[in-house]
Order: sequence, then C-alpha cells, then structure tokens
Amino acid sequence: MNYHSMSVDELRTTRDDLRQRYETLKAAGLNLDLTRGKPGPDQLDLSNPMLSLPGDDYRSPSGTDTRNYGGVSGLPELRAIFGELLGTGADRTFALGNASLQSMHDVTVFSLLHGNVDSAKPWSAEPIKFLCPVPGYDRHFGITELYGIEMINVPMNPDGPDVDACAELLAADPSIKGMWVVPTYSNPTGYSVSEDVARRLLALPAAPDFRIYWDNAYAVHTLVDAAPPPLPILDLAEEAGNPNRVYVFGSTSKITFAGAGVAFFASSKANLDWYSKHLSASTIGPDKINQLRHLQFLKDADGVRAHMDRHRELIAPKFALVLDILEERLGESKIASWTTPEGGYFISLDVVDGAAARTIALAKEAGIALTAAGSTFPYKNDPHDRNIRLAPTFPPIDELRTAMDGVATCALLGATEVLLGEQ
Amino acid sequence: MNYHSMSVDELRTTRDDLRQRYETLKAAGLNLDLTRGKPGPDQLDLSNPMLSLPGDDYRSPSGTDTRNYGGVSGLPELRAIFGELLGTGADRTFALGNASLQSMHDVTVFSLLHGNVDSAKPWSAEPIKFLCPVPGYDRHFGITELYGIEMINVPMNPDGPDVDACAELLAADPSIKGMWVVPTYSNPTGYSVSEDVARRLLALPAAPDFRIYWDNAYAVHTLVDAAPPPLPILDLAEEAGNPNRVYVFGSTSKITFAGAGVAFFASSKANLDWYSKHLSASTIGPDKINQLRHLQFLKDADGVRAHMDRHRELIAPKFALVLDILEERLGESKIASWTTPEGGYFISLDVVDGAAARTIALAKEAGIALTAAGSTFPYKNDPHDRNIRLAPTFPPIDELRTAMDGVATCALLGATEVLLGEQ
Repeated sequence: MNYHSMSVDELRTTRDDLRQRYETLKAAGLNLDLTRGKPGPDQLDLSNPMLSLPGDDYRSPSGTDTRNYGGVSGLPELRAIFGELLGTGADRTFALGNASLQSMHDVTVFSLLHGNVDSAKPWSAEPIKFLCPVPGYDRHFGITELYGIEMINVPMNPDGPDVDACAELLAADPSIKGMWVVPTYSNPTGYSVSEDVARRLLALPAAPDFRIYWDNAYAVHTLVDAAPPPLPILDLAEEAGNPNRVYVFGSTSKITFAGAGVAFFASSKANLDWYSKHLSASTIGPDKINQLRHLQFLKDADGVRAHMDRHRELIAPKFALVLDILEERLGESKIASWTTPEGGYFISLDVVDGAAARTIALAKEAGIALTAAGSTFPYKNDPHDRNIRLAPTFPPIDELRTAMDGVATCALLGATEVLLGEQ
Repeated sequence: MNYHSMSVDELRTTRDDLRQRYETLKAAGLNLDLTRGKPGPDQLDLSNPMLSLPGDDYRSPSGTDTRNYGGVSGLPELRAIFGELLGTGADRTFALGNASLQSMHDVTVFSLLHGNVDSAKPWSAEPIKFLCPVPGYDRHFGITELYGIEMINVPMNPDGPDVDACAELLAADPSIKGMWVVPTYSNPTGYSVSEDVARRLLALPAAPDFRIYWDNAYAVHTLVDAAPPPLPILDLAEEAGNPNRVYVFGSTSKITFAGAGVAFFASSKANLDWYSKHLSASTIGPDKINQLRHLQFLKDADGVRAHMDRHRELIAPKFALVLDILEERLGESKIASWTTPEGGYFISLDVVDGAAARTIALAKEAGIALTAAGSTFPYKNDPHDRNIRLAPTFPPIDELRTAMDGVATCALLGATEVLLGEQ
C-alpha cells in the first residue's frame, strides 16, 4: 500500500510491524558491506592469468625493454586499444599509472599552481568554482574540497547534467573553471550523457580556461547487449570550437585489477603537451611492465569487450537481484525511487526526503554498512537527505540478498518515522 | 705531463696531436651513450623471476587480496624491509607507487598549496627558496624550477653539504623552505653524508617549516665490501628537536626494475598523517600486486643485500674501468679531477674551468652522448663550466671502454683549447 495515502493510525501500525521486523534483523548479527564499488573476487579471478605475465616476454611489440626507464606517455599499443574504447584515438591518449584519480588530482594542482593552457593566471590566484552534477562521485568532490574549490550542485538528469542550469551559472560567473562529469553509466545513477547534451556542454559560453573533467570510468562496463559506442568527445569539442575544453580519464581498475590497473588521460594536443611537461617533472614514466601485461592479456579492443562480457555474466544477476528486492519490498509503498542502470557499478536509491541518513543509521545498527549519508554530494551534504548509493558487485549473491532485504526494511521503517514526524 | 706547466708551444703541439686523435675518433662513427643512470640489461635480468610473480599466490602474508582496492600506505611486510634498509622503521615508512620522484613532487605541491604541518601559510603565498648542494641531481632541480622556487647553490663536500654555508643562508633568510640532499653515494659525486654533518643539518636554526628532502635513492647500492649502515635520520631529527624536518625517499627502481619498482616515503608521524591526507585525495592506493611481487622476490632485508651483491658484480668492473681510463689518460695532465665512489650510479668529473661544455660538444660530434652541460646544477648553469656526470652502468663494457677513451681525448683537447685561450 502507498504509505503516502495511509492514515496516521495505519502508518503507526505499519511502523510497529516494521520495528518488529527490524529487531529480528538486528538479532541476526549481520556484518555486511554495500559501501564501495569494488569488484568481487570472482571478477578479479577473470584476470588471474595476468599474475604470471609478462614472463620472459618483456619487450613491447615495438621492441621497448619495458623493464627500464622511459616513455612518459605509455606503450603505444595500449594507447591504441583504449584510444579506441574511449573514442579519443591513440595519439591523443596517454597510458599512465594505476590511478586515474591521480591524473585528475594532478591536472587540478597543475592548474592551481600554473593555470592551464588557456588561463591568464594560476587558478589559485583567486577563488574558483566547479560545477558538480549530483548525485555524483565522492572522490571527485574530495579533490575539489581539499583544494578549497567551491562546488556548485547541478542536477544530473537521465541524459546528463542539466545544461540549462550549467549555462546560466557559467554565463554569470567566469570563476567557474571546471566541471565533474561521469559520462557513461554515471556514479551513482547509471545515467549516460547523450550526444545532444555533450554537444551543448561543449559549446556553452564559459571562461576560456573552463574544463570538463570527463571521467569515463565505466566506458565499457555495460550490463546490456547493445552498449552504445563512446562519444568522440574530443572531436565534438573541436567542432564546438573549444578543442581544449575536455580532459578525458579512464582506467582498467574495474576491467582487470582494482589498484593494479592502468589509467588513461586523453585530451587535445595542446593540453597533452602541457600535461606532459608537468608530468615529466614528477615521474620518469609509468610502469610499462604492467602496461605490457595488460596488452598481452587483453590483446585488442575486442578482447576488452569479450572480457567485459564475462564481468557482466557475474554482476548482471546481482544488479537484477537488487532491483527485484527494491521493487518487491518498496514498490507499492511509493516511499522510494531508484535507477535501473544499463551499466556501471551502482544503483542510486532515493528515499523520502529526510529519511536517507536515518535509513543508513538503522542499517548500520543492524550490521549492514552503506555509503555514508550525503556521500554522493559535495561537502557530504545531501540537501534533501534522500540519496543512498548501492554497490551490488562485491558481496556474494546470498549476502547481497540478505543485505538488500535489510536495507529495504530500514528504508520502510525510516520512511514511516519521517512521515509520522518522528524524524 | 702536467698541462699547466707546459709552454705555449708545447700546448700547441699537444693540441695538434689531440686534434689528429680526435679526427680518428670522429671517423669511427660511434653511437654511444653515457647520459643517464640506467641499469644495464644484465642488471635487469637479475630480477626476471619477478616477471612471473605473484602467480596464483596473490594474497599478502597478512591475508590481503592484493588484486582489490585499498591500503594507501602499502603492504606492511614491504614497509618493514625498507624501513630497515632506510633506517626509518616500518611504522614511519610508506610503500607507494613506481616513482619516488612523484612523491617528492607531491609533497612540494601539497606544501605550495596548503603549507606543511609547521607552515603558517601555503608556501605559494610568497616567494620561497631551496638550498641545492652542487653538483646534484637534475630531476630534483627540475621540480623546484617548474614551480618557481628559487634555488641557491651550496657546495657538496665529501662528507655532505657544506653546513657552514647552509647555516649562514638559513639564518639570514626564513624564506628558505627546503633543501635537496642525496645522502648516500650522492648523484653525481658518490659522496655520502656523515653522521656529524647530518646532526648539524638537523639542528640548524631555520624556518619552522623548513624541510630536508633526504632522497636516499642509493641506500643499498654499494660497490665495496663494508657498506655503512643507514643513518637513523628520523631518530636524529627527533634528538635535534626538529622531528618534522626530514622527508625520506627511497625506491627499488635501481634494485629491481627501473620504472616498475616500488617507491618509499618515510617521515615523522605528523608528516605522514599530513601526507596521507593529501595522498588519499589523489589515489585509492598503490599497486599492491607489484609490492607483493617485490616481497616474494626480495624476501627480507638480507635478500635485498644479497641481490645488491649481484648488481655489484656486474657494475663494479665498469666503475673500475672508467676510473682506470681517467687515471691513465688524464692523470698526468692535471686537467681534471674526479670522484672515486664507493657506491651509487655516477662518477663526477671536473675538467679545467670553462672546458666542460666544450668537452661535451666535442664528444657529441664524435657520437658519444654525455649528460648535457650544466645538468648537475640548478637552472642548468654550472658557474665554472667544469662538471661532467659520467654514468657507467648502462653500456656494455666494450662500448664503455671506447666511449670513455673518447671522452678522455675530448677532455684533453678541450683543456688545451681553454689553456691556449681559444675557448
């Protein structure tokens, strides 16, 4: 029954039933974790052949001894594979170390200290701001928060960031220098940026040194048969007359090994020159042996796609299970809505306004860890206190079922408390 | 014969003889490279078993699945080994990614943007300076130059930086915020910092947020039987009442694979907390699989020492050969002096003032690449134009012999030209 149509008495009875159910849940003494988008051990197993590579075959196809120093931009053969998968092309794509987050952090500090190729002065010369589509990725917001960059929320719609909101903000404020975007199967909504939205974002009037951080972390992480091809975002930027506007990031962290993958940075020639000048001061080069290991294992873009199919076989049932439980336990109540992603690592759950923190606290008390309240928003401040990020990949499916059933109970109980004015 | 005692006629005759010898050298059409401190392929071969590790054994001894996310400070077991070898202790030593240079760069930009734990304001709030013992390492100077930090030369003596010069500069100028030091087998001199010099440096009056970048890159890279144990530099800093003064860096780049090694950062608890707060914004963690690979291969501190003995067997003859040729070809002439390192990767050659750039140019024309003139000084400016860094490790021994003999000819010819006032 729709909780919003219940009388106070009905709500109270429902709440009391839920409290009983919640006490049973607590008594079970669970210790389950839905916090982070970590691959499950069975997913990691898929890449185990890499653990013995490259063996004696330590030269790259072009003859480089990967064991020695050199090559800041990475192995050309690996750049070609991910240049194809990211829609950026080998020449405009660098293969780097194990963390695309590092690359996002680095371009930010380089810009703060020196400005980028289109800056009149260093970003740190005056207060600057970033646009943050919400809900979004907490580690993005962590970088901008650490460096005192003011974050402005804009809505993340099913076809991408709200362009009208962005346009209005950018037109009014030249101190907006950047914008976080996860263009494919966004964290946590699973939404993808449409070509139309992308073209409009690229063409918006903005400060000349305004940059879109296009974190294409889930470019190939599809849960459906027909995955859309990547937008040729750098070409679109050129067409829009703003060739330097986009920094593209990607990685194999959720393709091969989380933490031992290869990160990618792609951008215009001018941006790459600027980036490599700074990068060359901080490293003699990335781990080329690990890049070769990836090359030998993945082979080519089709190899990556085939590998992602095997991931999908393992995680699609987990996503389906979470969606089933949400529908079954929360559907009729109308106290929650959620996204149904066609890829990526998360499901975004919205409960009634004011009930997210309470739901998360109830779950925690029952031994089910959820991402901390507010995490999907800048400054960990969810203005409506309603968003919960669900990460279905890591737990085994039985644990996932138990945990999600518990989360549903907590969400229902939290909702009754809020609707009764108790929270 | 001592060139300085020659008459002008004798010098001219000598120069003409050398010119003839140089023409023969040029005619040989060499293509040899003594520029960088790269391990030779035979040295890299020593670590080839790592290329198939960790195999199926991907859990750390303490049970961590190294394939997944997490653990910003690195595998405890590897921290223990290098905490011992660097004299810093496991608790105060982080195991990181593949480049200690990245770590030096990062603490610099963190300090510029936020200041360090003892700063009243960010370093970038006003012009700052670094002390640079010379000759020194070009990539150190590259970081400070990129970020506009003024570099001040201080002499590097056989027992370490000239402490009196440092004392005078630091006492007069609180804008001096840092100092580069390679404490063991320094690049390029091979000199090591004595305990007395270390204690004095640690106790010098200076700005509270003054930091010594203690880049112990060659801590275990000995060429002699009795290598001195590492100075317990963090303990000495505590004893001196300046516990936060030292950032210690190290890496396995020249132990296992250059570019695919593991870097280390060690410092006081307060500095580590500050560092990991910033580091956590830029990475979810280092490549733990590569750390485990190192752990399985090196096993313990004695394993590292035994491994370094095998390096020594390969490179000690190369150092001996270079020193023999220098003595044989340049000894009597007194136009040059050089260091006789007991470890590290370089020999520092001083020719007569004003002759280094000419010698390097002559060598280049004859097909022998030397590190660019001035590279061992800030701003690539060798004020006496006399220092040349020799890197004996990479070329096979026959090439090394040919190259060094050619370098000697160029040095002698350059010297006669300078002494005759022709350069």
